[in-house]
Amino acid sequence: MAYSPLLDQLLQALRCLPGVGVRTAQRMAFHLLERDREGAQALVNALSEGLDKIGECESCRMLAEDQLCWICSSANRDSTLLCVVESPADVIAVEDSGIYRGRYFVLQGRLSPLDGIGPDELGLARFEQHLETGLVQELILATSSTVEGEATAAYLASLAREHDISVSRIAHGVPIGGELEYVDRSTLSRAISGRHTLEIE
Amino acid sequence: MAYSPLLDQLLQALRCLPGVGVRTAQRMAFHLLERDREGAQALVNALSEGLDKIGECESCRMLAEDQLCWICSSANRDSTLLCVVESPADVIAVEDSGIYRGRYFVLQGRLSPLDGIGPDELGLARFEQHLETGLVQELILATSSTVEGEATAAYLASLAREHDISVSRIAHGVPIGGELEYVDRSTLSRAISGRHTLEIE
Repeated sequence: MAYSPLLDQLLQALRCLPGVGVRTAQRMAFHLLERDREGAQALVNALSEGLDKIGECESCRMLAEDQLCWICSSANRDSTLLCVVESPADVIAVEDSGIYRGRYFVLQGRLSPLDGIGPDELGLARFEQHLETGLVQELILATSSTVEGEATAAYLASLAREHDISVSRIAHGVPIGGELEYVDRSTLSRAISGRHTLEIE
Repeated sequence: MAYSPLLDQLLQALRCLPGVGVRTAQRMAFHLLERDREGAQALVNALSEGLDKIGECESCRMLAEDQLCWICSSANRDSTLLCVVESPADVIAVEDSGIYRGRYFVLQGRLSPLDGIGPDELGLARFEQHLETGLVQELILATSSTVEGEATAAYLASLAREHDISVSRIAHGVPIGGELEYVDRSTLSRAISGRHTLEIE
């Protein structure tokens, strides 16, 4: 036996963190126990309080500690724009871009019939409620560019068209600052097929 | 404001973990809250219990949840050998090698006069108590090969000689499986100056 039972239990528990293996868990445990017991206690408190109080926003399904998340409860948001993303992390990414001032809907996944995830599993009834309010004028599809993400986008687009709402998809192409020779084939083919005409001034 | 207050608090708290920056903290928080609440609760419990119950072994200063750590309380250890290491992680590393069956002493640091860390700060009085028992026949110095580690080793060696205890230093040289051309200069110079004669059979 290389560890004491409690230490072993802590190492196992740390491994539930994404990207944390045996070595990192050991480094984390020793760091917390030897050098940062105060930080460790703060982590215990924050995580425990978060588990207790952070749930899903009733409107957009973002992580929220009240009934509505801070975006849905803000009065400064444009309710005519609805951006659909796959996860809360995607909401943060779009927010960080600083350009979007509309509202969100978090799918918490994507359609994947092979895994048994259909419209019901994604809770798309709640999504349709947003479309039925009559407030939304443009649906922006920001699901991933995987096969499932594209299929999900196509399905949501068809729902929006039933409600006469215009639909857009975020642009895919060469990243800003990316050099053509290092961009992967499918991104480049998407960038070429999605080219747009430049007006001659 | 990009996060809700509790989420922000959790992100800050996660950053006390070594090697965890803004992005990783976000990934961890979202993973725990969305996909692994059970694991997160287990982490809260294990960390909280660990903080409460894991302290220092009274004899060797390894992390321990009782007065003595599992190594010091084992009857199968050779008390004539005492290996000095800098940290609990080093104890685990030596244990993992599987070759050592003696006892340990954890310095929790190394002599560093410039940082105000002298023999008193390292608690070397406790170390001398081990030498005074008369049980120890060989002191193995496994401090790091940094300037401070070497200075610490030299100091401990002088203490051991005062008690007529033989002293050894772990070998430094080319790692097993390491190719000469990729080994750094100081390791290689140490390997050459520390060469040993092969007996002709």
